[in-house]
Amino acid sequence: MDIEKVNSMDFGEFVDVFGNVIERCPLIAAAVWSQRPFSGLEDLEKHFFAFIDALPPSGQEGILRCHPDLAGRELLRGALTAESLREQSGAGLTSLGAAERLRLAELNAQYRARFGFPFVLAARLRGREAVPRELARRLQCPPAQELRAALAEVKKIGRLRLADLLAGHPAPR
Amino acid sequence: MDIEKVNSMDFGEFVDVFGNVIERCPLIAAAVWSQRPFSGLEDLEKHFFAFIDALPPSGQEGILRCHPDLAGRELLRGALTAESLREQSGAGLTSLGAAERLRLAELNAQYRARFGFPFVLAARLRGREAVPRELARRLQCPPAQELRAALAEVKKIGRLRLADLLAGHPAPR
Repeated sequence: MDIEKVNSMDFGEFVDVFGNVIERCPLIAAAVWSQRPFSGLEDLEKHFFAFIDALPPSGQEGILRCHPDLAGRELLRGALTAESLREQSGAGLTSLGAAERLRLAELNAQYRARFGFPFVLAARLRGREAVPRELARRLQCPPAQELRAALAEVKKIGRLRLADLLAGHPAPR
Repeated sequence: MDIEKVNSMDFGEFVDVFGNVIERCPLIAAAVWSQRPFSGLEDLEKHFFAFIDALPPSGQEGILRCHPDLAGRELLRGALTAESLREQSGAGLTSLGAAERLRLAELNAQYRARFGFPFVLAARLRGREAVPRELARRLQCPPAQELRAALAEVKKIGRLRLADLLAGHPAPR
């Protein structure tokens, strides 16, 4: 899809296509539509990120809370969005052994209890071995630093999803 | 459900329950969770509304763009949220005749083209005869005034949905 096509979309089409660039936050795509026309992928991305950066901390934490756990209850319940399922599957998180899954569930629960939002990681860029290691490391971070780190992951995920949509096919991992 | 129950929820439960108080904006419920504990329905409502009021205009328009048309394509496609379907059905909008549906589709299209967001109305409070009349009237309003009017309807819808959830059953129309 080229940028002219994007710029020609009414808000209904735009939200249908870009509504999950930020996981379960169509509000953000719907707000970004106000900034059209866009000059290209980077410009589009810039507006998504600016919206996130301008939110109060509770809103930024809200974005994180719209994300699923990695290899967590949403995956088990079949309730992941198509994008999340593809990413978790691509990272090997849908085929963990019982011990790995349990270890991750424990770390996820500790993380949620400590920070009040789920552990978010651009899993496509890492792979399954890195996930528990990175989770255990970030569990030790101070909360304000961890909020910034988690939002940086949200942006990495959004960048990959935007690139997929503009390329018209999934980007390489 | 009493307020103690609400205050005992982790963010996953809270977003599951309150995620659609503002249509297709779980981000807002997820942000409001940061403000717990809540003293009651009015306090909870106050935090939802404060979040909306603090957004920049593009974000407020974004909220509106997450709403479906009344008797529009989402209804025809079976893509309404459970709450919207119940409200549109309760207002008689799911059983319009062909001429009424066409008239409304034309007005909705004019409204979307003029304001860049869909016509939002707390339909439960009005009923089917009022919808095209109100739509035709609001089509004539200046855009800044109309944005305020539309957000006031979002809040009416949110208030009714919150009351339903805290009462544990649908509120009377």
